[in-house]
Amino acid sequence: MSNADWPDFSKNELIPAIAQDDATGDVLMMAWMNEEAFNETLETGRVVYFSRSRQKLWRKGEESGNIQELKGFYFDCDADTFLVKVNQLGGAACHEGYRSCFFRRIDTQSRATITEGERVFDPAQVYGK
Amino acid sequence: MSNADWPDFSKNELIPAIAQDDATGDVLMMAWMNEEAFNETLETGRVVYFSRSRQKLWRKGEESGNIQELKGFYFDCDADTFLVKVNQLGGAACHEGYRSCFFRRIDTQSRATITEGERVFDPAQVYGK
Repeated sequence: MSNADWPDFSKNELIPAIAQDDATGDVLMMAWMNEEAFNETLETGRVVYFSRSRQKLWRKGEESGNIQELKGFYFDCDADTFLVKVNQLGGAACHEGYRSCFFRRIDTQSRATITEGERVFDPAQVYGK
Repeated sequence: MSNADWPDFSKNELIPAIAQDDATGDVLMMAWMNEEAFNETLETGRVVYFSRSRQKLWRKGEESGNIQELKGFYFDCDADTFLVKVNQLGGAACHEGYRSCFFRRIDTQSRATITEGERVFDPAQVYGK
């Protein structure tokens, strides 16, 4: 029930960051920021995460071109989660080619998975994989 | 670069869950779900988290009355983050009395913190603290 004044990276080395499309309000993705990513994002106005799998800074869009321009940087009541409002270049945040990473909904009755998002690009063409 | 088909709680005991207001699109909060919270949320249609500080199920609104009715349950491309679209009863998700927990914005030039949200309730009255 604290109201922390500023993110404390000595307490949480990695802080989850939610990216929301500033124009549409769509939640695009969630990734992580270390202190370096946090500072670079604020300084450059371009969203930078820390990739846990690659263990290095991840300048979103560096491979796909789908850069996220920072429109607003928010943090929550406990200062342990970020919300970045972004202008998503290329129209898609997800490496699967969907606008949002949250393109699948669970039907609560059947527990079936329903794909709701629309593919904006073909990942095979963008990443050559 | 995987496209996991279903959340795997044996890999991640706790999965971050972003709550978004289904009507306004506002991102309200982020909390965590274990498998029990995930199942109860889908079964009851009322959002349940797992409180890391209290180490038990947290039926959102059990103290404040500010229940979250589930409107849609989504998961992301890696099946390791949830997005729940909710009807936020009482108009506020944050224990500080704000509509959203993300009521503070960082000014990128000055790094000053600007409170943008409006207080919907007085926490002292709701929690008696």
